[in-house]
Amino acid sequence: MNFTIKNTLINFTDSYITTDVQVVNGQITAIAPNLEIIGTEINGENKLLLPGFFNAHTHSSEMWQRGAIPPLPLELWLSHLYDLTPLDTEQVYLSALGTAVETLLSGGTSVVDHLVLIPGQELETIATAVRAYQEIGIRAFIAPLIQDESLSAGIPNGKIDLNHEPYFRSTSETLAIIETAIKQFHHPEAGINILVAPTGIQLCSDDLFTGCIALSNKYNLCRHSHLLETKAQEKLAEEKYGCSAVQHLQEIGFLNNYTTLAHCVWLKETDINILAQTQSTVVHNPLSNLRLGSGIAPIIKYLQAGVNVTFGCDGASSNDSQDLLEAIKIGSILHNVTEPDYQNWITPRQAIEMASLGGAKGLNLENELGSLTVGKKADLVLYDLNNLSLLPRTDPIGLLVLGRPVNVVNSAWVNGKKIINNGQITTINIDELKQELFNRSHWETQQESVNVANLAPHYRQVMGLN
Amino acid sequence: MNFTIKNTLINFTDSYITTDVQVVNGQITAIAPNLEIIGTEINGENKLLLPGFFNAHTHSSEMWQRGAIPPLPLELWLSHLYDLTPLDTEQVYLSALGTAVETLLSGGTSVVDHLVLIPGQELETIATAVRAYQEIGIRAFIAPLIQDESLSAGIPNGKIDLNHEPYFRSTSETLAIIETAIKQFHHPEAGINILVAPTGIQLCSDDLFTGCIALSNKYNLCRHSHLLETKAQEKLAEEKYGCSAVQHLQEIGFLNNYTTLAHCVWLKETDINILAQTQSTVVHNPLSNLRLGSGIAPIIKYLQAGVNVTFGCDGASSNDSQDLLEAIKIGSILHNVTEPDYQNWITPRQAIEMASLGGAKGLNLENELGSLTVGKKADLVLYDLNNLSLLPRTDPIGLLVLGRPVNVVNSAWVNGKKIINNGQITTINIDELKQELFNRSHWETQQESVNVANLAPHYRQVMGLN
Repeated sequence: MNFTIKNTLINFTDSYITTDVQVVNGQITAIAPNLEIIGTEINGENKLLLPGFFNAHTHSSEMWQRGAIPPLPLELWLSHLYDLTPLDTEQVYLSALGTAVETLLSGGTSVVDHLVLIPGQELETIATAVRAYQEIGIRAFIAPLIQDESLSAGIPNGKIDLNHEPYFRSTSETLAIIETAIKQFHHPEAGINILVAPTGIQLCSDDLFTGCIALSNKYNLCRHSHLLETKAQEKLAEEKYGCSAVQHLQEIGFLNNYTTLAHCVWLKETDINILAQTQSTVVHNPLSNLRLGSGIAPIIKYLQAGVNVTFGCDGASSNDSQDLLEAIKIGSILHNVTEPDYQNWITPRQAIEMASLGGAKGLNLENELGSLTVGKKADLVLYDLNNLSLLPRTDPIGLLVLGRPVNVVNSAWVNGKKIINNGQITTINIDELKQELFNRSHWETQQESVNVANLAPHYRQVMGLN
Repeated sequence: MNFTIKNTLINFTDSYITTDVQVVNGQITAIAPNLEIIGTEINGENKLLLPGFFNAHTHSSEMWQRGAIPPLPLELWLSHLYDLTPLDTEQVYLSALGTAVETLLSGGTSVVDHLVLIPGQELETIATAVRAYQEIGIRAFIAPLIQDESLSAGIPNGKIDLNHEPYFRSTSETLAIIETAIKQFHHPEAGINILVAPTGIQLCSDDLFTGCIALSNKYNLCRHSHLLETKAQEKLAEEKYGCSAVQHLQEIGFLNNYTTLAHCVWLKETDINILAQTQSTVVHNPLSNLRLGSGIAPIIKYLQAGVNVTFGCDGASSNDSQDLLEAIKIGSILHNVTEPDYQNWITPRQAIEMASLGGAKGLNLENELGSLTVGKKADLVLYDLNNLSLLPRTDPIGLLVLGRPVNVVNSAWVNGKKIINNGQITTINIDELKQELFNRSHWETQQESVNVANLAPHYRQVMGLN
């Protein structure tokens, strides 16, 4: 597990230097030229070493539906998703592996999996994801997705008084399952972390949120949730609380420096200030926000207000991939069309830092992860600058962020353990994974969904689409 | 050159069928199950066959600066580009090959190269690009980029009366060069087409436009130009003509069904109607428009007005890649955030048709290219559906457009000639190309540009950025 990377390019202030990097027992122990070789020697020539990125919001099992759902806004898309075949734990296992593979091959070494739980097999679902992530060796932050309201409650009522079916499981039972999961699976030292993760204000009661806060405090856990992804959710928050969702979450105490919030598209100035005050982190999922027509999150405003921002791919049926470099590229350049002054545009170097240190900060691990710093854990990615997609040679980080890098990850380590060698995942058999994914699926044309057909009239009416 | 693809999946109405496709002498001669094998047998099992896409707007030599230019709006970005080392013809050759390789590996079989000409070596530049494209075998539409005004004239004056240096070459000399190029190099039957291609209203006089129109009429050539890429150009058109750029171009007769117009970001309703009436084609370059902060082109409005739309990557220093599948994905989903009604959103199947038939229409070749139709030329791409990035199996076109396909092109043919076999370019030596690109470049940090520093104060003032 000890190694020394010789003569690699690293990012240093606003330039590059060629240097050696030494890793002992999973920790970066030295960064300097001409280091003594400890452990395996790695040739870093014509390569760029960066800290691993965080895929800071995804839902791994959506991999089974990627490509399958037609262009629809979140609320109807979600109905379509519910319409599709329910999952089994073997599928959970395979899609967790697939999500990890694509994340790793695009520069990620950590994944926050807002994991959809199979009803009645909640702990088995979590155990399965834990097994997959341990096998492949990615650093995993498993955030079991919970709610206590039924799907139709996630759409604003408008002027109609609607009744929604009660959710199939009580709030206290749900919280008990999460507490059991924490006790069984939360092992940060082994690279497996459990987060408390109510899906969002659209489908969760205050009791569920406060129960999650209590678990977070009791076990010192991070918190994860969707926040104001769509205009419909903004309307819903007003109906539900008479104030913005952010104000409400602050009041009940959900927001702090342990909290990462996916999307954050529909926040007002006052909401942004609350995120800054509470040191909450925004997880920007640009591809999903475009695909679902959710909107463009005001990321430059967040940065200007001092809010920490990092990137996520979101689940693979609202993107429909897990390519973190794609999320970083689009999540950077997208904002150039909303911010008139180019001096405020996100630079490639800034984007890299958001994807690495920004992710670590969001998970309260900035002292352990997210940068090439002596003493930090060796979650590292070595990029092959000889790859055609990174040629001719110009600014390596410019090419990596603004280009379309393909097959560029030469090596990746998590906690000093090598997961990618010479562009190949070493810990699992990729051909077997492909074969399983192939065998358990079939080609199909994008289908009309019964759920969507049922929900669409109300959705169109309340969103003024007639 | 004759072959029969057996048992391939093809797109048929809104579904898929498994069938055989026969190609004889560069033409599709039959599409039906159980065809007799003529020529080489190609195994189409677990593969999807689509018509080749058009990379309908790029500047190949920008490959040398990709990754190098910091986030800047077009006008300043262009100044930065001018600042960088001038090109030699060997570089033109290598970047034309590089552009073709990336286009082919992402599903393109045709490229429209709005080719930057080396001053004093204009015909040599064109000859070099011709040589590169013939060697690799992509179908090439070379649009030599011409102008007759100097760079600073491309920024609105505002209230100041500015004098601009005259352009170094007269309008008539420029037109004479283009006419020579047409006579020497325009050989559609050999896959090389010359287009008349004034860069745009921002740097071209009416004399240059009308000279191009005359050449287009005389030699039956397509026309290509940038159009209203930025807000600054919209202002400039008002200063220059007292009407919109589109109205002016219609008046002088530049717009017809032979005309493709890159960008088209800042058009009004009346302008859109003119594009529809004149049967002009819009080339959408979504990545470049984001990267340069140009804006979001109103693509859904174009489609609703009946304007033909296709996709381009734009030059590799404003993108900074030549991945056509990326341009198609972002160019489809980007508009979901500007169009409130999801029923108008671009579907993956629509996007595929825009990228293939849309490109063919723009170049007035819809009877010869752009679809899997008996009698059309065999510009074909066979995608490997066993690739991890296209698994698990769902809707193949959904996966291709909405996912992030990597290494998915198994085979590609142009005019029935095989250019990609088993994922590898067969016509040129990729390792040699990489080595040359590597040798002729060096890693550098993104630099401040002298030109940009000089131009920025006026740009900021006239654009209200103070």
